[in-house]
This record gives sequence, structure tokens and C-alpha cells, in this order.
Amino acid sequence: MLNENKTYSYEDLIFLLEQKKYTDLMRRIDTLPPIDAANFLTSIDGTYFPIVFRLLKKDTAAKIFAELDPDRREELINGLTDRELSPILNELFVDDTVDMLEEMPAGMVTRIMKIASPETRAEINRFLAYPIDSAGSVMTSEFLDLKRSMTCSEAIEKIRRIGLEKETVYVAYVINSERVLEGVVPLKKLLFASADAKIGEIMDQNVVFGYTHDDRETVARMISHYDLLAIPIVDKERRLVGLVTVDDALDVLRDEDTEDIERMAAILPTDKPYMRTGIWETWKKRIPWLLLLMISATFTGAIITHYETAIGKYAILTAFFPMLMDTGGNAGGQTSVTIIRALSLGEISPRDIFRILRKELCVALLCGITLSAVTFLKIMAIDFRFTLQSVTESGIVQNNLAIALVVSVTVLFSIPIAKLVGTLLPLGAKKIGMDPAVMASPFITTIVDIAILFLYFSIAARVIGF
Amino acid sequence: MLNENKTYSYEDLIFLLEQKKYTDLMRRIDTLPPIDAANFLTSIDGTYFPIVFRLLKKDTAAKIFAELDPDRREELINGLTDRELSPILNELFVDDTVDMLEEMPAGMVTRIMKIASPETRAEINRFLAYPIDSAGSVMTSEFLDLKRSMTCSEAIEKIRRIGLEKETVYVAYVINSERVLEGVVPLKKLLFASADAKIGEIMDQNVVFGYTHDDRETVARMISHYDLLAIPIVDKERRLVGLVTVDDALDVLRDEDTEDIERMAAILPTDKPYMRTGIWETWKKRIPWLLLLMISATFTGAIITHYETAIGKYAILTAFFPMLMDTGGNAGGQTSVTIIRALSLGEISPRDIFRILRKELCVALLCGITLSAVTFLKIMAIDFRFTLQSVTESGIVQNNLAIALVVSVTVLFSIPIAKLVGTLLPLGAKKIGMDPAVMASPFITTIVDIAILFLYFSIAARVIGF
Repeated sequence: MLNENKTYSYEDLIFLLEQKKYTDLMRRIDTLPPIDAANFLTSIDGTYFPIVFRLLKKDTAAKIFAELDPDRREELINGLTDRELSPILNELFVDDTVDMLEEMPAGMVTRIMKIASPETRAEINRFLAYPIDSAGSVMTSEFLDLKRSMTCSEAIEKIRRIGLEKETVYVAYVINSERVLEGVVPLKKLLFASADAKIGEIMDQNVVFGYTHDDRETVARMISHYDLLAIPIVDKERRLVGLVTVDDALDVLRDEDTEDIERMAAILPTDKPYMRTGIWETWKKRIPWLLLLMISATFTGAIITHYETAIGKYAILTAFFPMLMDTGGNAGGQTSVTIIRALSLGEISPRDIFRILRKELCVALLCGITLSAVTFLKIMAIDFRFTLQSVTESGIVQNNLAIALVVSVTVLFSIPIAKLVGTLLPLGAKKIGMDPAVMASPFITTIVDIAILFLYFSIAARVIGF
Repeated sequence: MLNENKTYSYEDLIFLLEQKKYTDLMRRIDTLPPIDAANFLTSIDGTYFPIVFRLLKKDTAAKIFAELDPDRREELINGLTDRELSPILNELFVDDTVDMLEEMPAGMVTRIMKIASPETRAEINRFLAYPIDSAGSVMTSEFLDLKRSMTCSEAIEKIRRIGLEKETVYVAYVINSERVLEGVVPLKKLLFASADAKIGEIMDQNVVFGYTHDDRETVARMISHYDLLAIPIVDKERRLVGLVTVDDALDVLRDEDTEDIERMAAILPTDKPYMRTGIWETWKKRIPWLLLLMISATFTGAIITHYETAIGKYAILTAFFPMLMDTGGNAGGQTSVTIIRALSLGEISPRDIFRILRKELCVALLCGITLSAVTFLKIMAIDFRFTLQSVTESGIVQNNLAIALVVSVTVLFSIPIAKLVGTLLPLGAKKIGMDPAVMASPFITTIVDIAILFLYFSIAARVIGF
């Protein structure tokens, strides 16, 4: 022992313990450095140990738990029920849990993984070396494994014995002696088969499975695509290491969709519900894109400034800025969001680029013609009679027809440009391994703004001549 | 396509087909997941397609039939005689048949209704009466119902007898003599209970259920929230009429999220995958909002025109139009999209309006201050030195500091306005029973543009004086 100087002594604590002054004892322990509290608890009689531990506040218990020596910890895990252990585990820092798990016998690891909340489990799995957002990080290691040579009644007997502990008992997997995945047996089939049929005969060898390093969204989409209750997860040698259940898949897909939606709206993804995200945290998630996009608008400013003299003469041109830019942004946003969603659902891949481009450009042409015609008619029939009346009367040199023409030709060309940008950016992002969801309306709008303004002034310069 | 790991390939099947080894081919197809078998059949030559289909076992044929894409299915219905079609239709689950009928031309519907057995026809008619997107329209009427007075072994016997026909056999529901829902028994519990225990003793009386007229998204979210394999659906008298299974919930949530995402991007929702939506159809889904939003921009045009003389003198003010409008649109879009998603996940409701407003306005203030400060510094330090250089040299009357001030004050106030609009519109839409998803970035942007331009010119008029 180190020769430590302290303002308190174990003797005081032991006195309180012996006098059964538990309230005072707990208050004292609460104020101790956790390592000291752990040492104190380790020093007391083994029968008192779990009793005292149970009385501790949850967070204190977790901190002390992390500091206990491995033997004492295992003793405690064996002495506590799942209900007592669960809050403590969920209070523990995940790295502590992982450190702890790495030193533990396999059976105990399994029990702890089962008690942990899904979030804790995801984190533990991730810490245990599976990449973030991988199938490995969301899987559970609780599954039913059978051997080919078992009979159905032996299998049912095994399931009865251990099944209630398992997260799902409705699907069992068949593995060989190297633990390689060989087949799947739905419980339904097992129940209705004759008692002495061999598992190897009734199992289905066509198993859809995922690898630990697969994206968690991919395996969740496979569960959805194949209407599965669970998907087995294997390592590189195809050895069964876990499974992802349909309820976890639902959570994964909800979170992935929320993340996509947030990214599409220029927000950094949060993983907390709206009401539980604080003001500063919300600000931190929203300000980076707002700043970046605001600063990118420097380019549009520069283009406008470049044509400043022309604007001085034809100020009416600026009246169409918002319409042109919003329409371009909306048209590009429609395409990019459609493509982002189709990529995320696995309906298309960057390999389909030429078919997608052909389709998008045809649609863009149709939209461009429609919008261009409507805008021309609207400017001639409405704007010059009502909203732009003051301008036509103000005596500044201009030509109504020329302006209507400039605006409508700009619309005609800007829709294909917007839809092209909206097609190429998400597909390109996917191709280079970025999240395509970032390439949605806000980002597209900024780029499309630049192109449209440039186009607008170029056309105006030719038609009106400045 | 999904990154799928499978233990089989289409090449083997095509080889068997080309070698005319039909028996082997049928055996292989029999073991495939129906959706893969459907994709395989869709990929083969059209003339082989009905031939191969006729050779399939009835129940396999029905499962594959349910997974075919609508065009292929209609082709097949036209190619088969009533006698060939009838057993397939009667093997189909009623909810699949109803989904199919909803997409079919009238003549074909009549033919199918004629072939169907009277019982099936009656059920189809009942399903067709449930409102679109209701729980009733997605539920299956195939479920396991037990009585309280049964013993576990009687229940298992009943499940063995009819269970394989049912879409799910993993949850059974307990009903009384009036068919009113009384409890739920997971098969797991049934298996591990003693054979002569009564169902009434082991059932769980706390059943989560939905009504036929509930929104399909609501019941799907309940399945996700409670980690259920299925949710029972009852009528107004709480009589059990069907159930929605977790795989249907996955489909519902995928479609609902896709619809939300489309609406948020100003697209009318399609229910077809991207690659199967034709050019005209895509145009029809995209053009209405583009037109509407384009025409709404008439108001921004009018505001700008109103200040036309000022713009003639201070053309530099227009250089900040895109930045101001995009930033406002992005800020409002972030808020509206966050709120739309939280509403859709049931995290918030219009009743929380004051807490939401307080939070959003605090965040808006923080964002406004940050963006305003950055834009002021950027204009002074960068814009006037580089991008706006030509302007300051052009001799037009102006005051750099005043302009930087006008722009940054506009930013400061426009962020809270944008976030206010982004909060109120989706909450208001929800309150009056509209889909809040329509109130996303494109719509918000148009409204926010008007407010910001008005603000910008008002501030400019005071500071610069025109």
C-alpha cells in the first residue's frame, strides 16, 4: 500500500457500517474519490459488499464499479440481478465497460451485453473495434446456434433451455464446428417438423447475411427487403458472430432517415430527439453550414457587382433575381433530393449515371419549356401592367419584350443546368464515398445561383446590349 | 442495388433454364426468397416467363406473384387462364391482393374479382372500403385467435393445424365470444408454459393495438416504438379484425419517409421507385410546385421594383440579394425540416408550440449574431477590398460602413424571422390537419424572401437614406 495522507479514514466508515448507519455511510461514500470508495468496499467483509453496493446512488455506484479490481467486479456481477446491474452498466463510461469486458470470461461478457441498453451496446460494440455505423456496431451477440446433426426435438430442447435469454428465439442459425454459418431454421419450421428430423435436412441453406464491416443501413435495408425477423452477421471467415434484429433495423432506418433529412437541410446530424437537444447544441449543429453557404455567396455578389453599371441602367433586371434563383434552386433541389433518396434506398447506384442523366435532362427540358412559357406570358400580361408599372412609367430606357425574353430564356436554360448540378453532385459524392445527402437543396442552390446569374447577365448583354 | 450477400446466384438458375432442367430449376426457385425469385423471373425472356411460372408449386407461385412488379404481374394475368390464375389468387394474402388491385386497370380488377372465391371476394371488398393510408388498408386478416379457456397444448395444437397458413405465427391474440380483443400471447411464452396452463392465465392483458381508421404511419411507429412483431387492429367496438406485421411496418415507414422527403423538396409524392417512373410522370410530379413557387415570386419582384430608383443609385445593394435570401431560406429550412421530422416521429406536437418557439428564437438569436458579425467583418475586410472593388472605384455615391451595417443588421433580424416562419408554418399545418412536410425549405424560402427584401430596403432607407 502507498502511504497515503487523507482527511478521512476507513475506520470511520467501518464504524458507521457496524452501527448500521447506512444513510450516513452512503453520504460519506458519496463524497469520497471513487478509487478510495472502491478500495474501502474491497476491504470490507465479502457478505456486506453487495449489500452496501446496492444502497449506493446509481452514478456513484457506476464510478466505483469502474474502479473495482476485476475479481471483485466479477463477484459483484454474479451477486446482482440484471435489474440491479443494468442501471449501473448504463451509467458506466463505455471505455470503462470495454476495458472491463476485455478482461472478462465470455459468459459474463454475454450477460453484460444483454443487460446494456441498445445505445450502450452499440457503443460497446463500436469500441470493441467495429467501425462506426457498421453492422458489427449494432448487432447483438445473443443468438441461437444449432448443429446440422441435431434432431428437431434436441434443438427445441436447447431452445427451451436457453431460448428465453436470447433476444430473438424465432430464428435459429446452423453453424459447423468452425462456427461457419451454414443455414437458417425458422422456429416455425422446427415446430412443425417431425421430432426426429435432422436440422441439416430442414434448414434453409439460402441464408441472406451481413458482414460485421457492412454499413448498418445496408443490413437494415436487407431485413426490410427480405422481410426478415433478423439477419445473421458473420466475420471475414464467414463465422457467425452476431445478429441484427428487425427492431434494431427499425431504429437504424429511423436514425439514418433522420440523419439524411437533417443533412439535406444543411444541419449536422444530431442523435438526440428535438426536445432533448439544448440551445447551444442546436446552434452548433446549424451554424457551420449557414456560415459556409453564406460565405460562398460572395461569388454571386461578385457577379452582380461585375454588371453593376448595367444594373444602374436596367434596375428592372434585379426584380427577377429572387424568382430566377429560387426556381433554379427548387428545380435542382427536386432532382438532388430524389437521387439522394433513391441512392439511400438502393434503387440506383452511380453506375446508372447515364440513364439518370438522360431522364433528368428530358424532365428538365419539359419543365424548362413549361416554366419559360408561363413566365414569358406572366411578365407580358401581368407584371408590366401591374407590379412593374412604376418602372415602365419611370422613363428609364427599356424594352418590355426584350426583358420578358431575357428572363424566359434564362429560365429555359437554367432548369437543365440546375437539374444537371442536382444529378451530378449527389452521384459524385456517392462515388467518392461521401454522404450524398449533403448535396441537397441548400448546397445546390448556392452553386446554381452562380450559374444562373452568369447566364442571366450574358443573355441580357446580348439581347438588350450593355 | 443493395450490397447483398447471398449464397446463390442467378447464373446457376439461368444455366438450368437453358438446359431445360425444369425439375431442378423449380426445386432451386422453391428455396429462394420470393423477392429474389421474382427478380429472376422478371429478368428472363418474356416468352419463358409464363412457362416457368406455370411449373411452380401453387404456394411458391403465389408468393412470387405478390413480389412481381405491377407491369410484369398484369402481363402474367393476361397470359394465364382463369383456371391457372384462381389457385394463385386464393393462395395470396388478402392484403397483397388488395394492394395489387388498387394499382390495376378496371377490366382486370373485374376479372380477378370474378375468379376469386366468394370468401376472398368478400374480404377484398371489405379491405377496399378502408380509407387510403389507414391501418385497415395495410392490415392482414390472417391472424391466430385463441380463447381464454383454452389450454396451452390446445392452443399449440390449433397453431399447428392452421398456423402455417398465417402470415405470422409468432404472436397469437386472445378474443372473447364477441371477438373483442382481450390479450396477447407470444408464441415464445406458449412454448415454455406448462401444457395444461390456461391461455387466460399466461396471456398479457396490456395489449398495444390500433384501430382500422388509424393512420398507417401511426401504427407502424407504434410497432417500432414498442419493438413488436405485429400489432392487432380492432374496429370501433374493439373487435379484432386484423393485424399489421413488422415487415409491413418497415414498408410503410420507408414509403412515408420517402413521401415526406419528396414533399419537403416540393415534389408531389410518387409511389414508384425512381427508375420505374417515366419522364412525363416525373414532370407531372415536379412541375406544379415549381410553377406555384415561381409565380409567388411576383411579390419579391414587386418589392424590388418599388425600390427601383434607390437601386439605380445604390446598385451595390443588389449584390447582397442572393446571400441574404439564401441565408434566410437556409435558416428557415433548417428549422422547418427539424420540426417536420420531429412531428413525424411523434417527438413533438402543436401543443408544444411555446417551448419550441422559445428554443428556436434563442437559437435564431445566436445564429443571427454569429452570421451578422461574420458578414460585417467579411464585407469590410474582403468584399470592399476585392470583389466589390470596381464599385468603390466607380465613383457612385456610397458609404462602405453604412452598407456593411445595413447588410449585417438585415442578417441579424432576418434569421429570427426565418426561424419563426419555419416554426409556425409546419406546426400550423399539422394543427389544421395538413401534411406539415409541404412547409419545408422551398415554401419557406419564398415567404422568407419577401420578408427579408422588405426588411433590407427598410433598413437601407433609414441608414443610407433614400
